[in-house]
Amino acid sequence: MNEINIIVAGPRGRMGREAVNLVKETPHFRLTAVVDRINNGKLLSDMEGFSGLDVPIYTDIHECFREVEADVLIDLTTPDLGFLHTKSALENGVRPVVGTTGFTPEQLEELKELAERKSLGCIIAPNFAVGAVLMMKFAQTAAKYFEDVEIIEMHHDQKLDAPSGTAVKTAEMIGVNREPKAQGHENEKETISGARGAEVDGMRIHSVRLPGLVAHQQVIFGSNGQTLTIRHDSYNRASFMSGVKVSVETVLQLTTLVYGLESIID
Amino acid sequence: MNEINIIVAGPRGRMGREAVNLVKETPHFRLTAVVDRINNGKLLSDMEGFSGLDVPIYTDIHECFREVEADVLIDLTTPDLGFLHTKSALENGVRPVVGTTGFTPEQLEELKELAERKSLGCIIAPNFAVGAVLMMKFAQTAAKYFEDVEIIEMHHDQKLDAPSGTAVKTAEMIGVNREPKAQGHENEKETISGARGAEVDGMRIHSVRLPGLVAHQQVIFGSNGQTLTIRHDSYNRASFMSGVKVSVETVLQLTTLVYGLESIID
Amino acid sequence: MNEINIIVAGPRGRMGREAVNLVKETPHFRLTAVVDRINNGKLLSDMEGFSGLDVPIYTDIHECFREVEADVLIDLTTPDLGFLHTKSALENGVRPVVGTTGFTPEQLEELKELAERKSLGCIIAPNFAVGAVLMMKFAQTAAKYFEDVEIIEMHHDQKLDAPSGTAVKTAEMIGVNREPKAQGHENEKETISGARGAEVDGMRIHSVRLPGLVAHQQVIFGSNGQTLTIRHDSYNRASFMSGVKVSVETVLQLTTLVYGLESIID
Amino acid sequence: MNEINIIVAGPRGRMGREAVNLVKETPHFRLTAVVDRINNGKLLSDMEGFSGLDVPIYTDIHECFREVEADVLIDLTTPDLGFLHTKSALENGVRPVVGTTGFTPEQLEELKELAERKSLGCIIAPNFAVGAVLMMKFAQTAAKYFEDVEIIEMHHDQKLDAPSGTAVKTAEMIGVNREPKAQGHENEKETISGARGAEVDGMRIHSVRLPGLVAHQQVIFGSNGQTLTIRHDSYNRASFMSGVKVSVETVLQLTTLVYGLESIID
Repeated sequence: MNEINIIVAGPRGRMGREAVNLVKETPHFRLTAVVDRINNGKLLSDMEGFSGLDVPIYTDIHECFREVEADVLIDLTTPDLGFLHTKSALENGVRPVVGTTGFTPEQLEELKELAERKSLGCIIAPNFAVGAVLMMKFAQTAAKYFEDVEIIEMHHDQKLDAPSGTAVKTAEMIGVNREPKAQGHENEKETISGARGAEVDGMRIHSVRLPGLVAHQQVIFGSNGQTLTIRHDSYNRASFMSGVKVSVETVLQLTTLVYGLESIID
Repeated sequence: MNEINIIVAGPRGRMGREAVNLVKETPHFRLTAVVDRINNGKLLSDMEGFSGLDVPIYTDIHECFREVEADVLIDLTTPDLGFLHTKSALENGVRPVVGTTGFTPEQLEELKELAERKSLGCIIAPNFAVGAVLMMKFAQTAAKYFEDVEIIEMHHDQKLDAPSGTAVKTAEMIGVNREPKAQGHENEKETISGARGAEVDGMRIHSVRLPGLVAHQQVIFGSNGQTLTIRHDSYNRASFMSGVKVSVETVLQLTTLVYGLESIID
Repeated sequence: MNEINIIVAGPRGRMGREAVNLVKETPHFRLTAVVDRINNGKLLSDMEGFSGLDVPIYTDIHECFREVEADVLIDLTTPDLGFLHTKSALENGVRPVVGTTGFTPEQLEELKELAERKSLGCIIAPNFAVGAVLMMKFAQTAAKYFEDVEIIEMHHDQKLDAPSGTAVKTAEMIGVNREPKAQGHENEKETISGARGAEVDGMRIHSVRLPGLVAHQQVIFGSNGQTLTIRHDSYNRASFMSGVKVSVETVLQLTTLVYGLESIID
Repeated sequence: MNEINIIVAGPRGRMGREAVNLVKETPHFRLTAVVDRINNGKLLSDMEGFSGLDVPIYTDIHECFREVEADVLIDLTTPDLGFLHTKSALENGVRPVVGTTGFTPEQLEELKELAERKSLGCIIAPNFAVGAVLMMKFAQTAAKYFEDVEIIEMHHDQKLDAPSGTAVKTAEMIGVNREPKAQGHENEKETISGARGAEVDGMRIHSVRLPGLVAHQQVIFGSNGQTLTIRHDSYNRASFMSGVKVSVETVLQLTTLVYGLESIID
């Protein structure tokens, strides 16, 4: 494959560090610079944990684009900074791959128009875990053939919300292919309240919280004599890097803005 | 091993049929008669589904004990009949293995005294699935070392009650070794009611109901960096026969009444 | 939906019985006759286990088609009979849904031409378990995004072959999207031979055989920090009926012969 | 509970760091000093990652015991150092909890005699993951009631050996209660070599290796109509700390040396 020149914005953050690692370990990826709020003019290799990576650090992304050659910008900063970075990248002919849930519809619209005017690919995704996205897509497809489905999501016990955002999104995606239907026996009775879980259009979602767990979800479809289970286990945040890699490779083929990893995976 | 002579009461019921099969297929077990409400004087082999089993059918259990040699009675009838059968067996020097949840405390007490007076073993159990009983015992032990535990039980969608009786019993057995404790984050919030399941002393029980499933339960313990899961899957009622077999072999060593398979398993 | 008139061939076989049940329990399916080698002229309701189903039994399928109205023939007989039945159905304007692995390429070609000439749909499938087919299709898709995958198939201990046919077929379908690659550590060492399972293009297949199990398979994909698991559990042969139902509904829309459930599922 | 004064040897190692954390986070545990090869005389809080822990560092363990009050020594150093530390602790009236696989039988014998002479508890364990030890003990018990069992262990793909040490040890512990028996069908045939896994007395062990996995094992018992599964998932090395905690609490009750966490867990 052709070598891809990449700038990473936010290299000292938890996700940014993983992204720098990804670029370093992928043979046809080449890191040409990083953008960070501090340490302008230094080398990344001067910072702890980045030995061997002697690429320049820029605090001004415009200056960075003027001086350094790049095909793709991987941005893992904040929504505010990320928006400015994405605009600047497109204006400088660099394709952005952005991990964020925080852009407003207006911001997305503005970036979409800019990408189209420049005929440049741009990928913005709230979740880069390829496995989680595949789980949701497969669940959506399976719902065409199975009327009954329950979701069990399991997380560490420091998680505040139940059900998880991924479980709710999975239920929504299943809902596209599933008619609402009360599941279980029509005279079913909860002898202890809550046993049958959270209800979404008759589907049930169960949220397990235990120390030791990380982030896990299974979607179980049942019909006469069989069950089909689709399960994703995320053990650490390196899981997001599979999606960043696919996005970097795909954004080069695109000429418009695409939202969500599910839009480039089939 | 020495051959064990066995009478089965209730041979045409669903459990009784399995018991007859068990006796037939176990080399050191020998079926000597069956007790049934109808067909007195005929042979079991005359009935559909029992070819080759040419043992006599009795409707009067007293007559049966007078005429037929037996070490053990396996009774899988109704609570009312079962109580009479069990008494009669003990009075005739035959050790009973009885599957029922229906005896009253007074009946159990009466049988207990009778067994002791006769110095005869007698096993009465509501659940003969060895795997389910081991799951509950193991969960009870694990609760000494793990503070946090959740139960997921999964059954076919024709089941009426949630949680299942086995799940509630498991929670009780765990409770023997576990201090009540609110699990999950203290500020945990259910965005859809019921997501966190049924609560028992801070433990959580989740009930999945789907067509295709049979009877399954997992008990998940979590602590820093690890989970321990104990799971039982019951695919059909043949699963109960493992416990009947153990009971028949054990009852011969006993000289008192024992309630529950968990009392003879360790 | 419009009512669909259906003839079942092979109603007394294990699969045929399930098919009759399926037709009986599906509101818009109507059983109009059955084809069987014996009992010509009797009613199906005269046979044990078919009470209430007063449709005629034919031993001559041509006579059956002449006298009985039908949209679809479900054939669950032998390859030899099935071939004749399928031909006859197409010639009489009835769409066949056939469960068999036994047709020769020449037979398939002949039926294909006949179906096209008559502009009639015809579905022939070796496996009607929708869940198993979805598992294989999802695994094939996931292989685009994960380089590493292992298959664990688990069956009852009376199964002769290891790995199972489904596992081998799954590996083949994964192979379409996966470059051959030696998995595991390059210096990996088996201290007991066989530990790492069967090898197919560097993938690994593990075959578990235990009494109690029925038919289960999981396909596990792994990459940095995550795993994606697709699992199918078949508890009894009713599982095949989901695919027969989809096929009956789909064959009415087709004007050609389609081989394999995977060709009508997406 | 009474407060327990604890010295940790090897605080900068991966396990040692976890041990320091454990002591810090357990209300009735109090860290009084650490033993390290360097930084004698400094405070632990001077070192990176130990802020707030202003306890002294000693390179000479004898000096440490003379100057600092302690009930328990947690030693997570090397076998050579660990042996010297353990001896010194016992001689100074401090109870050792030692994580190592490296002591020779002679060393163990010497320590055993010393502990007895001093009437001091001492716990030496190769594996402190309580969940893994419980899994092995439960498997050993279940083997009394199930003849057939298979083990599936799953690890990251950088692991060199297959099967894992834990899987082999589990098979040994099962072997105590299980008669050797060829499992599977007697005419079973591997169409691809290795499919049925590694064989130990007729049991089968399967080793899965995939990137993303950490350390997981399931032991599956099967009999007519049911399976019983015991599964341990280790997500990171914090899992070992549950066993260190139990050991610290238990060693105070002991007056002899005990080898293996399984000896203090029941």
